[in-house]
Amino acid sequence: MRYAETDQMGVAYHGNYFAWFEIGRTDLLRSQGVSYKELEAQDVHLPVIAAQARFVRPAHYDDVLEIRTQVTAVSGARVTFAYEVRRGGDFVLATGSTSHAAVDGRGRARRLPELLRRLLA
Amino acid sequence: MRYAETDQMGVAYHGNYFAWFEIGRTDLLRSQGVSYKELEAQDVHLPVIAAQARFVRPAHYDDVLEIRTQVTAVSGARVTFAYEVRRGGDFVLATGSTSHAAVDGRGRARRLPELLRRLLA
Amino acid sequence: MRYAETDQMGVAYHGNYFAWFEIGRTDLLRSQGVSYKELEAQDVHLPVIAAQARFVRPAHYDDVLEIRTQVTAVSGARVTFAYEVRRGGDFVLATGSTSHAAVDGRGRARRLPELLRRLLA
Amino acid sequence: MRYAETDQMGVAYHGNYFAWFEIGRTDLLRSQGVSYKELEAQDVHLPVIAAQARFVRPAHYDDVLEIRTQVTAVSGARVTFAYEVRRGGDFVLATGSTSHAAVDGRGRARRLPELLRRLLA
Repeated sequence: MRYAETDQMGVAYHGNYFAWFEIGRTDLLRSQGVSYKELEAQDVHLPVIAAQARFVRPAHYDDVLEIRTQVTAVSGARVTFAYEVRRGGDFVLATGSTSHAAVDGRGRARRLPELLRRLLA
Repeated sequence: MRYAETDQMGVAYHGNYFAWFEIGRTDLLRSQGVSYKELEAQDVHLPVIAAQARFVRPAHYDDVLEIRTQVTAVSGARVTFAYEVRRGGDFVLATGSTSHAAVDGRGRARRLPELLRRLLA
Repeated sequence: MRYAETDQMGVAYHGNYFAWFEIGRTDLLRSQGVSYKELEAQDVHLPVIAAQARFVRPAHYDDVLEIRTQVTAVSGARVTFAYEVRRGGDFVLATGSTSHAAVDGRGRARRLPELLRRLLA
Repeated sequence: MRYAETDQMGVAYHGNYFAWFEIGRTDLLRSQGVSYKELEAQDVHLPVIAAQARFVRPAHYDDVLEIRTQVTAVSGARVTFAYEVRRGGDFVLATGSTSHAAVDGRGRARRLPELLRRLLA
């Protein structure tokens, strides 16, 4: 965890967890052979339409964090990811989820590519 | 909205809304005569224990945003705020809420000061 | 200053000043009748090619900051802004500058629009 | 590079480089057996008193970046680091430097610990 991500309580500012969730889902997609960068190049964008988190224990500067991510729902045009942020494998610091709509570059709804839907199912 | 808050979709990165919510509750507290800075000086801290948001319409660079905040629950040691982020008074861009525990500087639970509880009730 | 902008030293993280400088130059442009958003719509982008800052006194949460900005150099394809971040009008917290190249949406050098050059001169 | 770090030009927002520089110097210190976290626990803080950067090529989402860091000056109470941000080992995206004063928790100047000075020399 970066110094830039601390706040004056000496812990990670809660807003940063949503950027960490993004790292988690990017890594999950990549582990399935999907590059989010390439998805965007194919005009598939997955903006966040809902996000939530529960903060159980604080994260501190220099903590090594692990983000565990799984897909909890996938439909024609939506996908939901769930996350656990852990320290040292042992302690859950936070849990959360994000829901995403598939849209094109103009923000119009589109279907998730079949391949992506199958990979995530 | 700041250029720093955009992402490559050309809209506000969703993680930034949680910092905007913070501006909303700081302003609400201040309108009730409570300075969050002074609360902290009295060893009352209100870390976020849960946060959620729904993103309805994107915010764009240079948009003038309004954050409407209200207290939706207050108990001995907890308080919950609800938010609406609006543009131009007309369009709701996002809604959300944050729940906070009252703790001292060491992170131990403490009661919300009576005055604060009354103000927020 | 936002809570999100503090770090665990209890002061503003130095990287945030560059986002504040951006607010300063946006406001300066606007005071000259130039909207940076409209500049971009006309395919004029002003990416930062160099930035520097000196940090004299720390900024604290809830400080009301003022950013004073002036143009210190303008040529066919470049412009440099200088900044002072002040608190309460009295104390200089930081000084800095940013240099910008004019480019089009593909990153190719282009001349600053004549009108902009005249306004900034 | 994180999606959160992009801006609407589709590249890394320049203010983020200063957080990356911080990662570079933390790693350099660690490679010398010095944990910045432990330094702070010993009441040695190294706030940034000056920072500068030159941005040569843009960084894009999902780029794997390398930060090369070296100490360019160290005296009784100050230390300066220089940085190169590279992509793929080949391309320099940015260079920069940060200067730091050694202070205690109250912000008063103090000498760098002898051991640290020797390690960095």
